[in-house]
Amino acid sequence: MTTRVAVNGYGVIGKRVADAVAAMPDMELVGVADVATDWRIQTAIGRGIEVYAATAEAAGPMRDAGITRAGDLVDLLGKVDVVVDTTPKGVAASNLARYREIGVKAILQGGEAHAVTGHSFVAQANYASAVGRDATRVVSCNTTSIVRVLGALHGAELLSHARGVLIRRATDPGESHLGGVMNTMVPESSIPSHQGPDAQTVIPDLDVVTIAAKAAHTQTHAHFWTIKLSRAATRDQVLEALRAAPRIAFVRTSDGLVALNTTVELMKDLGRPRGDMWEVALWEDVLAVERDEAYLAYQVYNEAIVVPETIDAIRALTGTVQDGAKSVQITDEVLGMRHDFLPRFPLSPVHPPART
Amino acid sequence: MTTRVAVNGYGVIGKRVADAVAAMPDMELVGVADVATDWRIQTAIGRGIEVYAATAEAAGPMRDAGITRAGDLVDLLGKVDVVVDTTPKGVAASNLARYREIGVKAILQGGEAHAVTGHSFVAQANYASAVGRDATRVVSCNTTSIVRVLGALHGAELLSHARGVLIRRATDPGESHLGGVMNTMVPESSIPSHQGPDAQTVIPDLDVVTIAAKAAHTQTHAHFWTIKLSRAATRDQVLEALRAAPRIAFVRTSDGLVALNTTVELMKDLGRPRGDMWEVALWEDVLAVERDEAYLAYQVYNEAIVVPETIDAIRALTGTVQDGAKSVQITDEVLGMRHDFLPRFPLSPVHPPART
Amino acid sequence: MTTRVAVNGYGVIGKRVADAVAAMPDMELVGVADVATDWRIQTAIGRGIEVYAATAEAAGPMRDAGITRAGDLVDLLGKVDVVVDTTPKGVAASNLARYREIGVKAILQGGEAHAVTGHSFVAQANYASAVGRDATRVVSCNTTSIVRVLGALHGAELLSHARGVLIRRATDPGESHLGGVMNTMVPESSIPSHQGPDAQTVIPDLDVVTIAAKAAHTQTHAHFWTIKLSRAATRDQVLEALRAAPRIAFVRTSDGLVALNTTVELMKDLGRPRGDMWEVALWEDVLAVERDEAYLAYQVYNEAIVVPETIDAIRALTGTVQDGAKSVQITDEVLGMRHDFLPRFPLSPVHPPART
Amino acid sequence: MTTRVAVNGYGVIGKRVADAVAAMPDMELVGVADVATDWRIQTAIGRGIEVYAATAEAAGPMRDAGITRAGDLVDLLGKVDVVVDTTPKGVAASNLARYREIGVKAILQGGEAHAVTGHSFVAQANYASAVGRDATRVVSCNTTSIVRVLGALHGAELLSHARGVLIRRATDPGESHLGGVMNTMVPESSIPSHQGPDAQTVIPDLDVVTIAAKAAHTQTHAHFWTIKLSRAATRDQVLEALRAAPRIAFVRTSDGLVALNTTVELMKDLGRPRGDMWEVALWEDVLAVERDEAYLAYQVYNEAIVVPETIDAIRALTGTVQDGAKSVQITDEVLGMRHDFLPRFPLSPVHPPART
Repeated sequence: MTTRVAVNGYGVIGKRVADAVAAMPDMELVGVADVATDWRIQTAIGRGIEVYAATAEAAGPMRDAGITRAGDLVDLLGKVDVVVDTTPKGVAASNLARYREIGVKAILQGGEAHAVTGHSFVAQANYASAVGRDATRVVSCNTTSIVRVLGALHGAELLSHARGVLIRRATDPGESHLGGVMNTMVPESSIPSHQGPDAQTVIPDLDVVTIAAKAAHTQTHAHFWTIKLSRAATRDQVLEALRAAPRIAFVRTSDGLVALNTTVELMKDLGRPRGDMWEVALWEDVLAVERDEAYLAYQVYNEAIVVPETIDAIRALTGTVQDGAKSVQITDEVLGMRHDFLPRFPLSPVHPPART
Repeated sequence: MTTRVAVNGYGVIGKRVADAVAAMPDMELVGVADVATDWRIQTAIGRGIEVYAATAEAAGPMRDAGITRAGDLVDLLGKVDVVVDTTPKGVAASNLARYREIGVKAILQGGEAHAVTGHSFVAQANYASAVGRDATRVVSCNTTSIVRVLGALHGAELLSHARGVLIRRATDPGESHLGGVMNTMVPESSIPSHQGPDAQTVIPDLDVVTIAAKAAHTQTHAHFWTIKLSRAATRDQVLEALRAAPRIAFVRTSDGLVALNTTVELMKDLGRPRGDMWEVALWEDVLAVERDEAYLAYQVYNEAIVVPETIDAIRALTGTVQDGAKSVQITDEVLGMRHDFLPRFPLSPVHPPART
Repeated sequence: MTTRVAVNGYGVIGKRVADAVAAMPDMELVGVADVATDWRIQTAIGRGIEVYAATAEAAGPMRDAGITRAGDLVDLLGKVDVVVDTTPKGVAASNLARYREIGVKAILQGGEAHAVTGHSFVAQANYASAVGRDATRVVSCNTTSIVRVLGALHGAELLSHARGVLIRRATDPGESHLGGVMNTMVPESSIPSHQGPDAQTVIPDLDVVTIAAKAAHTQTHAHFWTIKLSRAATRDQVLEALRAAPRIAFVRTSDGLVALNTTVELMKDLGRPRGDMWEVALWEDVLAVERDEAYLAYQVYNEAIVVPETIDAIRALTGTVQDGAKSVQITDEVLGMRHDFLPRFPLSPVHPPART
Repeated sequence: MTTRVAVNGYGVIGKRVADAVAAMPDMELVGVADVATDWRIQTAIGRGIEVYAATAEAAGPMRDAGITRAGDLVDLLGKVDVVVDTTPKGVAASNLARYREIGVKAILQGGEAHAVTGHSFVAQANYASAVGRDATRVVSCNTTSIVRVLGALHGAELLSHARGVLIRRATDPGESHLGGVMNTMVPESSIPSHQGPDAQTVIPDLDVVTIAAKAAHTQTHAHFWTIKLSRAATRDQVLEALRAAPRIAFVRTSDGLVALNTTVELMKDLGRPRGDMWEVALWEDVLAVERDEAYLAYQVYNEAIVVPETIDAIRALTGTVQDGAKSVQITDEVLGMRHDFLPRFPLSPVHPPART
């Protein structure tokens, strides 16, 4: 049976979720809702996606702009099993009551508070607890990456605590004419930043503190971590724990992947749609372990990383797949997610030996 | 009959030419040559492209890096009809003698001087004169755009002379960690800059002067023109001449396409490979005409704009298609090039009538 | 007699005007008014400037923030002959009635419309017409530079018409964490941009058209001009006309001053307050003349260029100096303005002879 | 007695050291040596500084460029007690033998290895050990800031260990047209980065690990630290230790100093030469303490922070001031260094009460 899905909000995240839903063999993209009248929504129409007016107020201007609408949000909700709400921060919280009233399951994004749905979701960490729920929140890009990486070490019982510095992109590339920061950095005014506590909504006993700042680039976040291990470990043991987890890909500066923009370029070269990277890209040869401390750096493609999680959340809420690992496997295969972006050469059997 | 093509230099242009060749029904990508040992060439291998060592010196390091080579450049040249040389500026000039010796037709890029091949190429302007030649030079991204736009007005006998200011991107996105400019602009130290005279290698009687500068962004050039028309004309007449030419697409600020990054985002949304835009994107609603002066602005996606020209040049040199318009049509259809990126709505009578 | 001056609005322009007023032998800075409660106004207090609350609403928050106020705007206006209003765009227009009521002469900035005061001011162009008026508007940074440069050619009867491309900084350095553009350019959506007509408020018969865009840097605008001369002229004749005008300084790429940031660095090295450049910096060796066309490029330090004009406007309104050239001379000498930033050496005969 | 000082290398650091030397009551700037022929050295001449050719090869080109030289480096060295070598990385090491031969005491910069002089210098940490030496190395901007801040906690016996993430500016503002990074971040390829061990050349028993990356801005570094305290402490205790140390200034986001560029703007507003900030600017209200962990962020004005250290090093080597605290006091008073950049208001007696 095919799960019928609506996407409310056709922005940076919404358009990617819409494409991913359309690509899944067990899902159908019924339509998207938005309030825009410009090129963004016109593109959806040009690609043959059914467009709905997300609010009563939007219907008129959309009609005036010549946007062919298939109806309003309520019409759309009437046709689907699940709605993914990717509207701007704060809007989804007020939409949820309506979704519940109509009986449509709902997935919110990380901009909303945990309390709104009472459940926060990262597939590899807590898929099972979302099965059958009427709503969940896929946590933000930063938090998703934290749960993936720290969760991998936590799951392997290697993690004592982690202290991270998160250097965020200032704004998204498609919106960088509207604002952002120029030739500066903007630290968050309080420590800890919200991402640490947010990760605890998914893994409650994670001992994690984050410091965050914005830097003057538009593409992808960079996270730098000092990790206290639960015991002295080798670099290989840490790598092994990370490799065992899904949705972490390894990149190496020795391959010339030395900066955020090189990985972004690689995604384009791999033919990824929109150049998206759904994986956390962890620098394998930057990772260092010294007795019971590990230091690592990774890159978060903030526009795309939550897309596979959202797909899994659809399956969890509807219960069409009961096993999280199975859902992850389907999602990753369809999207073409990888653990290594480059072919491994004979010199590097399976995984290259660690630097000594 | 299929034309067998080699690409020497798998960089920003080379990798795009390789993909375009592979996509053409009348061409075969036999292989690519390079000297790189890093992720860039590893990606080619990962995508199943045959890789050759471009120089004798490169063979050893490539082997040491585990790069599976199908042979050296000479081996590759022995298997093809045409080589597209996209090596760094100045290298191709010295390669040409070898290409001629082996009897392989050669296409050089705009970084080389016109005198090296004695012929400079833009499909819509002088395809016929390249038919059967042993070599040509596809002019640079900036010059290609100038020939397309001014050539359109020139062909319609609307152009008296043109004075342009070219604000170039500082470096390409995939190489922006290696250099570029930060928080500044760098004007070229002499006026006229080389692009005006360069356009005259394709259309000799073009009266054009260009002023150039680099700005602090990585994606796409922006050109701003003051054009003296050969006579007083209406805005519609100027638009009509531009619409009649191939490879110019129209964008509108009224659709929200108000900045270089918005068009770049649109290309991603359209599903373009690598987010490429092969067309010149001309701002339709910015174009102003006052008596016998026209003012216009357009955007040049410098990484991709010469790709279709290169494909046409292959057909011209080999003579497999004698008619330039026919070649342009094939190329544009296969790549999916457009005059309008967005669906035209019935309701926009304020704006110039849609192209039919 | 000393002219008593108030500055209303202690922002990017206001703080510079305040310093310049304080430096003039014939003026006294009585105080500044603002609504800010943060480091910007605290700095004024730290420097011993009397601070006033610019609005009734601001008084409370300023008191709560511990800002020692000497009174409110009305108190300040009661103590001065002239007020320089550098409040954000649109605010000054509504303040003007109050200034007139109280009988304080007023200088507004270029963000206001010409019609608000009925007079627009650039010292070298129309000082005389401002003498004795109750209000004028010092035109914007871009327009001031246009009037200085084109006005010099116009005054020398060398100008037929001019077509310019203005590449503006996106935001000011001290405010670049609040917005701006990243990795893009934003062309203005209509041509001509407002600066051409604005220059005509000062020199009515100027034939000028401007095209404008924002680029991704924070410091200084760059203007690129194609100028039709009234007759064929030599490069030296054009330079001579430019050298005869005040407040244009010459820089040379051959001295290594090749980019916007190098001139900014030079100003710091010269010990300028805040690194300010009040002059238009025109690239002497970039200037090219071909028969009756001249091409030139210059740099506009937007934060400071209107400061000397504002000082002159104070003298014009009050009539303390009747002769504009005399006022310009005083201002320029006190500020330390120059025609050449670098010592001229005997050995540079290739370059145009030094100004005497 | 006045110490006669030469500066070899009139670049970003050298020009600032030259100005600071000239400002000190107990020092005389005899001259500067360089190899440049462009605006940078012309500015020195324009400001009345004696210029010498730094190498035999440079003399000819400098003469040809019309640069008036007072002689060669050897002539300069013959007139001074101390030379501050601020030549590019690696050059100073080979100069040192010559300095020693001539008997001139020498101060090298942080780009050189510790082993070159065998002594590394930060005034507050180890002034005494430099007294009477023939040479020392003033450590780099990053290391200087680390020693100041961690040294303050270490001296107060509050420090167990510290783990820092250093986000560096990509290049200096005056050189940002020559290179840098655009729209990306570049992490260092190995952890720990060199700054941690480098700090140990000054304070050997410091337990510190650093992770470094370059970001896409030109002005000032930002450091983010997780600090394990030697015992549970209050926020006030940590602040008190930091306040007791010299050359750390406190800024607050609550004053609007929320980003790197705001502090840079503040320095201009304070009338600092070149807008320099010699202090480490530590965000007072960002500092957080949780039991035995402290988290803090500060800003390093990399172009200027080592200037006061260099001045102190001159006094240490010559032994004209035996007491480091005394030298620091003289330097700081002459330069106008501060603990607080903004006036403290009645609400905030001496130092504001800590957030609870």
